[in-house]
Amino acid sequence: MPPATVTIASGSTWQEVAADRQAYRDASIARLTPSLPDIPSIPLNAIPLAKQILTAAEVKITETTVEELVPKLATGELKATDVVKAFLRRAGVAQRALARAVDGQTNCVTELLPERALQRAAFLDTYLSEHDKPLGPLHGLPISVKEHLGMKDCDLNGGFVAWVGKVSKEDAHLLQILWAAGAVFYVRTTQPQSLMHLETSSNLYGVTTNPFNTTLTSGGSSGGEGALIGFRGSILGIGSDIGGSIRSPAANNGVYGFKPTTMRVPNFGMVATMFGSEQILPTFGPLSTSLEGCKLFMKTVIDSKPWLKEPSLLPFPWKDDDAYRGRKPKIAVLWDDGVVKPHPPVTRALRQVIEKLKAKDNVEIVEWIPYKHDEAWAIIANLYFCDGGEEDFVVFREADEPERPLTTHILRNEHVQAHTISSMWQAVQRRDAYRMAYAHHWNSTATSTGPRGELHGMVDAILCPAVPGAAPKLDTSRWWGYTSQWNLLDLPAVVFPVDRVDPAQYSAAEKYTPRNEKDRYNWDLWELHGAEGYRNAPVSLQLVGRRYEDEKLIQTLEIVKAEAGIPFVDYL
Amino acid sequence: MPPATVTIASGSTWQEVAADRQAYRDASIARLTPSLPDIPSIPLNAIPLAKQILTAAEVKITETTVEELVPKLATGELKATDVVKAFLRRAGVAQRALARAVDGQTNCVTELLPERALQRAAFLDTYLSEHDKPLGPLHGLPISVKEHLGMKDCDLNGGFVAWVGKVSKEDAHLLQILWAAGAVFYVRTTQPQSLMHLETSSNLYGVTTNPFNTTLTSGGSSGGEGALIGFRGSILGIGSDIGGSIRSPAANNGVYGFKPTTMRVPNFGMVATMFGSEQILPTFGPLSTSLEGCKLFMKTVIDSKPWLKEPSLLPFPWKDDDAYRGRKPKIAVLWDDGVVKPHPPVTRALRQVIEKLKAKDNVEIVEWIPYKHDEAWAIIANLYFCDGGEEDFVVFREADEPERPLTTHILRNEHVQAHTISSMWQAVQRRDAYRMAYAHHWNSTATSTGPRGELHGMVDAILCPAVPGAAPKLDTSRWWGYTSQWNLLDLPAVVFPVDRVDPAQYSAAEKYTPRNEKDRYNWDLWELHGAEGYRNAPVSLQLVGRRYEDEKLIQTLEIVKAEAGIPFVDYL
Repeated sequence: MPPATVTIASGSTWQEVAADRQAYRDASIARLTPSLPDIPSIPLNAIPLAKQILTAAEVKITETTVEELVPKLATGELKATDVVKAFLRRAGVAQRALARAVDGQTNCVTELLPERALQRAAFLDTYLSEHDKPLGPLHGLPISVKEHLGMKDCDLNGGFVAWVGKVSKEDAHLLQILWAAGAVFYVRTTQPQSLMHLETSSNLYGVTTNPFNTTLTSGGSSGGEGALIGFRGSILGIGSDIGGSIRSPAANNGVYGFKPTTMRVPNFGMVATMFGSEQILPTFGPLSTSLEGCKLFMKTVIDSKPWLKEPSLLPFPWKDDDAYRGRKPKIAVLWDDGVVKPHPPVTRALRQVIEKLKAKDNVEIVEWIPYKHDEAWAIIANLYFCDGGEEDFVVFREADEPERPLTTHILRNEHVQAHTISSMWQAVQRRDAYRMAYAHHWNSTATSTGPRGELHGMVDAILCPAVPGAAPKLDTSRWWGYTSQWNLLDLPAVVFPVDRVDPAQYSAAEKYTPRNEKDRYNWDLWELHGAEGYRNAPVSLQLVGRRYEDEKLIQTLEIVKAEAGIPFVDYL
Repeated sequence: MPPATVTIASGSTWQEVAADRQAYRDASIARLTPSLPDIPSIPLNAIPLAKQILTAAEVKITETTVEELVPKLATGELKATDVVKAFLRRAGVAQRALARAVDGQTNCVTELLPERALQRAAFLDTYLSEHDKPLGPLHGLPISVKEHLGMKDCDLNGGFVAWVGKVSKEDAHLLQILWAAGAVFYVRTTQPQSLMHLETSSNLYGVTTNPFNTTLTSGGSSGGEGALIGFRGSILGIGSDIGGSIRSPAANNGVYGFKPTTMRVPNFGMVATMFGSEQILPTFGPLSTSLEGCKLFMKTVIDSKPWLKEPSLLPFPWKDDDAYRGRKPKIAVLWDDGVVKPHPPVTRALRQVIEKLKAKDNVEIVEWIPYKHDEAWAIIANLYFCDGGEEDFVVFREADEPERPLTTHILRNEHVQAHTISSMWQAVQRRDAYRMAYAHHWNSTATSTGPRGELHGMVDAILCPAVPGAAPKLDTSRWWGYTSQWNLLDLPAVVFPVDRVDPAQYSAAEKYTPRNEKDRYNWDLWELHGAEGYRNAPVSLQLVGRRYEDEKLIQTLEIVKAEAGIPFVDYL
């Protein structure tokens, strides 16, 4: 049980509530044994700090992938206790490292859970020795959790000051499933105010920065996960995504992030504003240092038949069969969405991947013409907040908490409208018409038609930017289109690391005349800071599949990775 | 091409528009060759009229089932032209028979399509002789279509006077699929004003009565289909269901009606008010004289991969595998929903089925305790019309058309509310909480729990009333709960014929004190009219499956039918 919490209900100011949450978090780190040193000054690249502070054994454990760790835990070659201790310490280092980076109160962690994690690990170690078999497919695997997914007896504030002091009575459904499979929960991670930034900044915990370049954002809204996993304070974590919130932090921190099609992964037990809104649906999903980690997460969750308890979920089993059976995947490349041109590091990474794929010729490459991605943004930005954002504004006012810049950017964007039922229905019709048109576009891209109208040679996946640049400077992540496009269409999408920015590769300035104000804003960020401003930032790409072809999408990325030799660089 | 339509735009009164639609319909029947005789007086039971008017060959064809007809059409043993001619004539008889039953303008048909159906059939006959193989799995099969599913170049009024004169530019997506599979469309059928009655009465076409007892309703809203198929003017038709609109007419007319889980069968190209509403979703589905007919419809539609064109649909293939593999189905029997007690014919049919199943012991029977079906009704009745019904009222006012009694009953029911976005979100939360609770109820009914929380022996299907009586007297179908319950939960449900009312079976009056006003209203209908009032009316039951277990549900009904020897009577 956490100690009593300072809340606005007790008459505290929002600053007092925030200070309380930060002290609570810091105390959870201070309880680690052996204790962690203070970190006096943070380099631009915080990654090497881990090796300086942790033991060699801890480094080895935390730099292992999920697929390497799971069998060792299942056989007892590694004890769950030793593994979670190492991750607790590395998560603590991640927090302390990033905590000093900007203004003395930034972070990726909302709390460590040393007592419950060690108790759980001890139970699992005993279980294994007594039963001579693991508890389940995730036996002993430490998993990090975005804060707004409720955990029994823990605060559940969702990043809102006014909600501090709400405590979950039970674990969220998704956590119950992972728990039954043998997982260990040991850390909870930050999210931005409103949960609707592609960065992570809140009045409760400040700004979450990027471990690869501490002048940059971790992305968001699952930015605590992104930064923590990029730092290897976790190798598998849970994020949520309604416009890019798994994929932006995955892309910015050089890790894998998988946004499934909606209604496959449980939502029950999470908090957010606008509960009951159905026009655009969120989904939980994994971030991991490996694609295999994402796949194991998905398979474990879906094999548990979560639809029996949460009947809004679809009863598709997880499919393990080969989607290709010897034929070549056909991948369409989308270089630019026609609204905001990606920065040169993204285009360069995409070009290199395509060149490698073409050279080996085991994947067919065609061009993808973007279909009205500006209209797509207008539709989804209008449907996110059908009440005009009022429910969020009420929660802000309740705690007298100020709006963060990116909150204003999204909640007061030009497409937001306080809908009537009737105007919302019209907006939904517009959404559905767009979805039909985009499906037609997919059906007719590079296909041939048989005698009875059947389609042959359909594109299997779209390869495209994940975000319109490498990890951005703080408070500049304004264009959601590269990720929100696939939320609007409810297509599964996976982000994967390809490269890091090496400024030496970008000596010549590229001349470009922006097409519109959004394009200009993004391009100016590149011209203003130059490649040097993004030194060492991860560069990632995205692969998008057809609706509910989640399994096939992962298989396609496995092929693309193997064929193109991705990633091109090491991240540690 | 239909002749130009009179519309309210030209200044006509609603009565003039209705007269025009009826004259248009009558003219389509008058064009049949050989022409049909007038029917001077209608008996209580209209079914025998067909044999009196049609040729023996026509009777034989139209009293064939889908599964008997399809192979004969595929091999050329029967010509598509002969088949559709027989169905056109029998549909014409159905219309003329029922047209005199009440007030001289009642009906089940909105128009026959002799020219296009005969042209299509001729094409198919030529195709078969030239290619020596059928065009597709429905080669030459006549299919009837509820009017609000758009057909190229035809009026698409949805039962609203104001919408007369709207003409579809192309066939609805569902019709395109059936067309590609070889179907012949030859008749369009009636629906009630607002599409939201469990009967079929509109200002355009009057009242659709029941061919088995012309003092009773056909049910609705797919009541034109129900009456037509009950009369064998069709053996496979398309209905739609958001609260019982496939199942009520199937039940009342002694035919099979299958409401799939939503998002499997295409909606695109239909009209209704409140387009864009997502809180409770409608679905199209089949009515047929055989369960096999329903199954072939579903399999054909889903095998066509409709999700490629209409991406809101789910890409589940149709599963042909055995869901039981030798084990016994476990069926829970729901005798009474705890709100409105079914009339004795329903309870008698249910009891007989259960006795037969128990006697053979190849099906396990357990009891189903209804879980708050009154609350379920409050939730769904609130969510049907989130704008408080305004969109319907606007359309009525546009044509100055009066509200029919059952329109008022549903659109102005005690649970209707003109929602704000915020209050709608709260209502959706209430819906989702109920769905979770009902899933929990299902999971914990007659199950045992394994060591890691896994459930064993889950109920496979619920056997229950389809509607709270045999086919009702006109304008008395007020209680939707036996069907709308499964729309709220989005569970697949199939209605099947069991018996017909034989007044001799009900000599002793049953003493019963109703529990509430709804219960009293329904019970009074039985006491007032007695069994004699429902003479010959079909008595049907309903089987309900788990969400998206559509295929398993059909298999389960195949087993139940075989084990219990259902139906107990002939219908012709």
